[in-house]
This record gives sequence, C-alpha cells and structure tokens, in this order.
Amino acid sequence: MPYLCGMNDKRPLILVSNDDGITAPGIRNLVEAVKHLGEVVIVAPDSPQSAMGHAVTISKPLRLDKTDIYGDILAYQCSGTPADCVKLAVDKVLHRKPDLMVSGINHGSNSSINILYSGTMSAAMEAAIEGIPAVGFSLCDFAYDADFSLAKKIATRVAANILNNGLPQATLLNVNIPKIAESDFKGVRVCRQANAKWKEEFDERLDPNGRKYFWLTGKFVNNDKGDDTDEWALANHYASLVPVQFDLTAHHAMANLNSWEYTI
Amino acid sequence: MPYLCGMNDKRPLILVSNDDGITAPGIRNLVEAVKHLGEVVIVAPDSPQSAMGHAVTISKPLRLDKTDIYGDILAYQCSGTPADCVKLAVDKVLHRKPDLMVSGINHGSNSSINILYSGTMSAAMEAAIEGIPAVGFSLCDFAYDADFSLAKKIATRVAANILNNGLPQATLLNVNIPKIAESDFKGVRVCRQANAKWKEEFDERLDPNGRKYFWLTGKFVNNDKGDDTDEWALANHYASLVPVQFDLTAHHAMANLNSWEYTI
Repeated sequence: MPYLCGMNDKRPLILVSNDDGITAPGIRNLVEAVKHLGEVVIVAPDSPQSAMGHAVTISKPLRLDKTDIYGDILAYQCSGTPADCVKLAVDKVLHRKPDLMVSGINHGSNSSINILYSGTMSAAMEAAIEGIPAVGFSLCDFAYDADFSLAKKIATRVAANILNNGLPQATLLNVNIPKIAESDFKGVRVCRQANAKWKEEFDERLDPNGRKYFWLTGKFVNNDKGDDTDEWALANHYASLVPVQFDLTAHHAMANLNSWEYTI
Repeated sequence: MPYLCGMNDKRPLILVSNDDGITAPGIRNLVEAVKHLGEVVIVAPDSPQSAMGHAVTISKPLRLDKTDIYGDILAYQCSGTPADCVKLAVDKVLHRKPDLMVSGINHGSNSSINILYSGTMSAAMEAAIEGIPAVGFSLCDFAYDADFSLAKKIATRVAANILNNGLPQATLLNVNIPKIAESDFKGVRVCRQANAKWKEEFDERLDPNGRKYFWLTGKFVNNDKGDDTDEWALANHYASLVPVQFDLTAHHAMANLNSWEYTI
C-alpha cells in the first residue's frame, strides 16, 4: 500500500491542494500555515491549472507521482485538474477521510463570480462534496513573488477554526485576502458573493499564416452596491469569508416555473 | 464584420452550444427543436468537451471558424471550452444579446451533482451570467445513436416557455430527460437538485513501461430520499427541470460563521 497514509497518527489529517501547481509559492505558504495543526498530505497538480473550473479528467488516464520537494511532508503531484487531485487523494492516497482540506493559497482573487472559474475553489468544493470540511484561500495578487505573510496568518486562523468548530453541513468557505500591508488589515468579514461579472473583450490577432485567433481578456465589473459583499470587504481592507454551497437549486424560482404549461 | 449576425432579423435570436462538440447528434437535435422559434446561431466546441466544468481558456489562444455543416444556419466551431464558446459568441459573433441560449442536448445525464462537472451546464451558466435566459438539456443516454425524439419535443416546449415568459433573474434551467419511450413519459417536473455524489473508484493500471496510471471511474450514489428531487423525477419517468443559480452563497451558514474568533 505505497500510497496509504494517516494510518498511525492521532493528529488531524489535513489534505492540501491548489490550482497553481505543486511548486507555486502559494501552496508552500499554505503548508507552512497549517502544518502545526495536524498531519499534512499534499496532492496537487504537476502544472498550473488556473481557470479549470470544476473540470475532471475522463478522456485520458492520470498520473500520480510522489515528490520529495516538501521534505518530510508526504506530497504527490498529479497530472490532472484540482478536482482530480482531491478525488485521487480520497481514493488512492489517504486511508481515511481527512479532517480538513485546504486549497491555495491562490495567486489572484477568487472572489465573487470568479469562484465558478476557479480551480482552487473546485478542489475545495470537491472535498466538500466528499463530506470533508474544506476552504479555499486566495490572495488578491497575481505576482509570483507576492507577499503571503498576512494570507498565511489568516489561513492558520481559519483552518484552526474549522478544526475546532467544524463547518455547517454541505458548506465550504471561500476566503480572499486583500493585497495590503498587515498594518492596514481590518479583520475577517463574513460576506455574500457579490453580483459581479467579467465583461469579455477578446483580443483578436493574426497568426504568421494570416489566420485569426483570440486571447481571452476582460474587465471585472461589479454593479453590486451592497456593503455585505466580498468585493466590498476586499476594497475596504477586510479579508472576505463567503460560505459556499454546492446545491445550486434556485428555490425561489420554483413557484414561477410550476405555473408554466409543459404539455408536449 | 464577418462574424456579426442577428442584425436584420426581428425574430428572437437563439444561441446554441453544447459540450459534446458541434458534430454531435445531440446538438443537431437541439437545433431542430428550436429553429422554428427564431434565428438560430451555433457556436460550439470543435471537439468533445465533456466534464470540463466551468473551465475557460486563458493560457492559449482560441480559434473560431465558420462551418457550413448546418446549411443555412450560421455556425461556428471553437477550439475552446463550452464557456469559451459563449464568451466568444457574445463578444465576437452576435451583434446583440440573444433572447435565449440553449445548450445540449447532452449525451448523458447532468442531474444532481453532475451539474458541477458539466460542460453543457457551464455554457448555459455562462450565458446566464451574461444576462441571457438560458437552459441546458440532457438526455440520460450516453449512446451516440440515442433516440432524441422525446428530448427534442421537451426542448421545444421549454424553449418556447422561456421566450414567452422569461426567466426569474439570475436563474437558468437544468432540464434532464429520462431514457424512456414517449408513451411512458409522465411530464415535466420542477425539482430541486438531489443531494447525491459520485463514489470514486479509480481503475489502477500499469503502462507498457511498468509505471502506474489511473482511470477515473465511479458509482453514482443517491442518498437523497426526497420525492421532490431531479433523481426521483427521472427514476419515475418525468423529465426534471431544476432552476439553477450562480450565487453560491450559503446564507444559512452566516450566523454560525459570524460567531467565530478571527483575531490573527
């Protein structure tokens, strides 16, 4: 059983993944943030998987290889998506359900509508579907050499809270940390997802053969004026903490839809 | 303006996409189902994109090429994901916001938790984020030569309903059709998403060089006993219609999370 772990350890078992890949500074900082809270096992993509949403790999096989880049901490790199990593960890790496799954720390925001496109959050959501208390952390700074010190402290605090208090059933957390100095930080704020979106502006170019191609680009537009949103919190020097569900049913719409005529 | 369309037509403008690719029988049947309801424009993946979730393509450029496989109906194939197709359609193909976006008909179920992994539903969700009334259709039959006749009739009826009645704000529809004869069909049922999941069972194999690899497989497990779910409806010869939202905030969890200690 070369992949089994967590068998002889009474400490909490903590699964770590991300979408920027196993070598990203963000996941290294997340491991630092939680390793004193329990036994850490890392299963993360072997290459960047940003914007993969909740993709899973069904049309090709997956690789899962041990790596020693985290020293004593058991770590595997996987050829698949963030959701694949969690599925493989649960089925092939861990001998029992982890007590906590942490994802990130993402290089860049996953607030508001970005949660839908986020590989970081899909890893956390996959864990939550498996019944594992889960949280994704993102720092609003895309830079490779971003300063993760504030994000790391918040990750420690939130992870400890989850281990101590648990999470409401079928709920995971989306935590975003603003790009500010710790001296300017005002605290963690429980928020709702802002009603914002990307306005696409594809960059249209010609390849050397004269054929058109397009690069996805766009502008983030927040039309949500509420002061209870994640966008408001981040703009006002708070870290945002949004409880997230994977039951997407719009219950409020059911009465309306029941009034329709469906005869075929 | 080679890509602009819908400029000189007073009929409803209907965007069609899918995740099985532009040549799949499912999308051909969906075009047949809605083409008498308005002006149809197709922007669909040039290759199968099942299980892509809400992935978008940010690390490579996209291609968008006209194809005449639908005769008089304007059709483009795109090298990206279903969500990419909708983004490109809105930004580069259509001169105005469509009145309706239909996705599918998927070869295989997208009920319950499958909505999260579904490229079909991510196309519809991307349209909904753009403020376009949107619906995804899926037939619970993976076969290439599946019988789409019942699904097609349901698609026509639901699409006409949306054009006539609109949809509640920020709500899209997830419609699944059982694999049954039309004579056994009991009607369309408005449902909630069943609380079900996949139990992963990765198939572990050795490649010709003796290195391990894994195929994702699994068993769908429905522990939700409610008779108001999509799974119940499909098992009982109804088509399921679930209203879906993309605000994932778990509002019911906020009070609990506000009681936590967040000092760092």
